[in-house]
Amino acid sequence: MAASDLTIGFDADDTLWHNEVIFEQAHERYRALLAQYHDAATVDRTLFGVEMRNLELYGYGIKGYTLSAIETAIELTGGRISAGEIRGLIELGREMLAHPVNLLEGVAETLAALAPRHRLVLITKGDLRDQERKLGKSGLAVHFEHVEIVSEKNAGAYRRFFQRHGIAPGRFLMVGNSLKSDILPVLELGGAGAHIPYHLTWAAEHAEQPVAHPGRLFTLKHMRELPGAVQSWAGL
Amino acid sequence: MAASDLTIGFDADDTLWHNEVIFEQAHERYRALLAQYHDAATVDRTLFGVEMRNLELYGYGIKGYTLSAIETAIELTGGRISAGEIRGLIELGREMLAHPVNLLEGVAETLAALAPRHRLVLITKGDLRDQERKLGKSGLAVHFEHVEIVSEKNAGAYRRFFQRHGIAPGRFLMVGNSLKSDILPVLELGGAGAHIPYHLTWAAEHAEQPVAHPGRLFTLKHMRELPGAVQSWAGL
Repeated sequence: MAASDLTIGFDADDTLWHNEVIFEQAHERYRALLAQYHDAATVDRTLFGVEMRNLELYGYGIKGYTLSAIETAIELTGGRISAGEIRGLIELGREMLAHPVNLLEGVAETLAALAPRHRLVLITKGDLRDQERKLGKSGLAVHFEHVEIVSEKNAGAYRRFFQRHGIAPGRFLMVGNSLKSDILPVLELGGAGAHIPYHLTWAAEHAEQPVAHPGRLFTLKHMRELPGAVQSWAGL
Repeated sequence: MAASDLTIGFDADDTLWHNEVIFEQAHERYRALLAQYHDAATVDRTLFGVEMRNLELYGYGIKGYTLSAIETAIELTGGRISAGEIRGLIELGREMLAHPVNLLEGVAETLAALAPRHRLVLITKGDLRDQERKLGKSGLAVHFEHVEIVSEKNAGAYRRFFQRHGIAPGRFLMVGNSLKSDILPVLELGGAGAHIPYHLTWAAEHAEQPVAHPGRLFTLKHMRELPGAVQSWAGL
């Protein structure tokens, strides 16, 4: 197998740069705001329920999170939350959007090492402008031949991506932290996956570990292990 | 010039389906909510200022509009707006997102007539999921070879689109209601434009009518005039 016909796809949030920690930090402040009304578990459970109810309309991203957080706060306080506190939530959302992009360790070097030898693509979901801004800030855009920001990462989305770019699934390896969005749909289509778990996973991304796919599913501790997995996968 | 090497790009909101009327209807309710505090002109001017201040972070679309509307309402009422009224604004945003898609008159027939003879593409900006949902509801997706949802429609975005799809600008005609987003950047790159004004234009889309570009700029009253403009442009 020639190296040059291989395509390696990368997820972005919590694969290339830290993301869930930004939500977690915001969520700590959110819990503190509502602490006089409800315990943290109730706040978490209610917000997650509102987010899931709104997901079909809002999609992924910080703007939808902010709207769901405001809605939840009104609900959990019986309407007693003040306009000033709601303004604070809007400000919290803006701070999340303006947050610096912090790369995961080893990402910059690994992409720079792989880019000359393989076709690298970025496939991520979320707010269009927010993901573009993060990619711009990351300094990584130069490594990617294609960047796709999609509204959902399921088998249909990957299939359309393969068709659009003339990629044979058997020549495609997807790298990401989410089994549900990055790994399982690609395995289903006959591609390969390198799963690099992040220390935090949003509940909506939870999925069971799939059965073994020898030679097609790699579980890595660190991005630095990726070139070795690519070699092993491609039989280089 | 063979018909088959021509690409016709379409804007979506207020070109294929009604959009600004949905914002206008929502805005009427918004003005009524704030009428006890401020006159309509002050509400309009303040909201537009907040939207423009937030545009870089929020991008286009209904979620950003809703967040800016809440922020503006808190500001204009000096924090006296109630949590229940803010919940009403969140509900208003959801109603906008769930609004039925109403095609402009003549659109379905015109696309069906052009699709067998030319390559049709859709290039729109806004919320990813919202635009995908509207395209799905519209029944028009079958006519488009490519659909691009971008965060801004400027010359750079069109240039990247041309490169990605191997389109020569001189073989490209863009159809849309916004001089600023649909017509001027394409003319700048050497393409052609068919401008079909909509009866409402968001202030942020305002642009001066460009100087004449004989044979490259067509101003149409109605989508039904498009096939004639395409023939005239292509010398068919």
